[in-house]
Amino acid sequence: MNDTSQDVAQAGTGEAAEQQGARDLLLETASQIMREGDQVDISLSELSLRSGLNSALVKYYFGNKAGMLKALLDRDMVTIIKSVDALLAKDDMSPVAKLRRHIGKCIDTYYAYPYLNRLLMRLVRDSDEAEARRIADKYLTPLGVAYDRLIKAGVETGVFRPVDPQLFYFTVTGAADRFFSARLVLRHCYGQDTLTEELRDRYREHTVDFIMAGILAHGE
Amino acid sequence: MNDTSQDVAQAGTGEAAEQQGARDLLLETASQIMREGDQVDISLSELSLRSGLNSALVKYYFGNKAGMLKALLDRDMVTIIKSVDALLAKDDMSPVAKLRRHIGKCIDTYYAYPYLNRLLMRLVRDSDEAEARRIADKYLTPLGVAYDRLIKAGVETGVFRPVDPQLFYFTVTGAADRFFSARLVLRHCYGQDTLTEELRDRYREHTVDFIMAGILAHGE
Repeated sequence: MNDTSQDVAQAGTGEAAEQQGARDLLLETASQIMREGDQVDISLSELSLRSGLNSALVKYYFGNKAGMLKALLDRDMVTIIKSVDALLAKDDMSPVAKLRRHIGKCIDTYYAYPYLNRLLMRLVRDSDEAEARRIADKYLTPLGVAYDRLIKAGVETGVFRPVDPQLFYFTVTGAADRFFSARLVLRHCYGQDTLTEELRDRYREHTVDFIMAGILAHGE
Repeated sequence: MNDTSQDVAQAGTGEAAEQQGARDLLLETASQIMREGDQVDISLSELSLRSGLNSALVKYYFGNKAGMLKALLDRDMVTIIKSVDALLAKDDMSPVAKLRRHIGKCIDTYYAYPYLNRLLMRLVRDSDEAEARRIADKYLTPLGVAYDRLIKAGVETGVFRPVDPQLFYFTVTGAADRFFSARLVLRHCYGQDTLTEELRDRYREHTVDFIMAGILAHGE
């Protein structure tokens, strides 16, 4: 029994269900710390304190802190990618309705995980070439492919302008990311917290209107 | 004579013109390091090596590294704010033409200084309440006021929809910032460098079209 598994045993996670619970709790606590602090730099001691779990569990479940950050990115990005896949599979929904739904979903996802884009950037930056490409293939390529299909479907039926799907990716994530990652600025400049449901709803409507107006063929 | 001024003397910056030159060179070198590295974390040793100047000059001119970062933010943000003030002062230009010009200018500014928004966030985050408010008052309030005036002018003549100027600020800077700050992701995912003039021009056109379509009253 090595040090780590001893620590795990000490942390009292004997059963499989409890182990899954501890792993999820570490990720959820890391997520909350990033969301509240408006940044992706977190310390293992704060994580341990907030979660009530021994920080050796990070090594046990994720190998190291970078492994935990990757697991968190995976947890949160999967939400967006599954949602896009489900939308594309719907045969009875128009491209316009699909895109409106997707943009709104992006705003909601960044409201829940405002650190998401910065976490992605951090992991790409800190990874070697092969790992960076793996991250890109796993989380960005599916979105690029989905945007390409969605825009083409709208262009074919005449409702969308032909828009570069790659640039469109930046239009959508830029709008979502930039707002919620400016939390501290908003607090200082405008005396308000961005992470309220009221502001989220207002910004969702604003952004869906803007982006849809930009892509609709007839300026509807 | 204290250590710092001795170092300054050793660096051979005796005359006022040379002093200004050394100060500007430090800022320009810091700017280049941030732009190339796609981040705002820079080391004084790299700054010294790249500029050929003694790193004690940072203390002499700016007090400390944070002071230098503030001076760089000031140098770069003034570009945007002066450009907006000049636009607002033009009596013979329509609100539509003014806004198109401004959005294009934002894209160009972020192309030149892709770290600008992250630098602003960093300084707000690392400052105490009073200093954060000073930064906000100096760089963000003028933009908020300008957007408010520009949008109102367009709404009065019936060309713009009534849009929240605060949310609009995030739409514009989000589009500008998000693209150029994703340099490493683009390189890994799409095998291309965002910081080319060709891509800048393509993204400028894309973004001006999108945002103008979103604010025009009649979907022109």
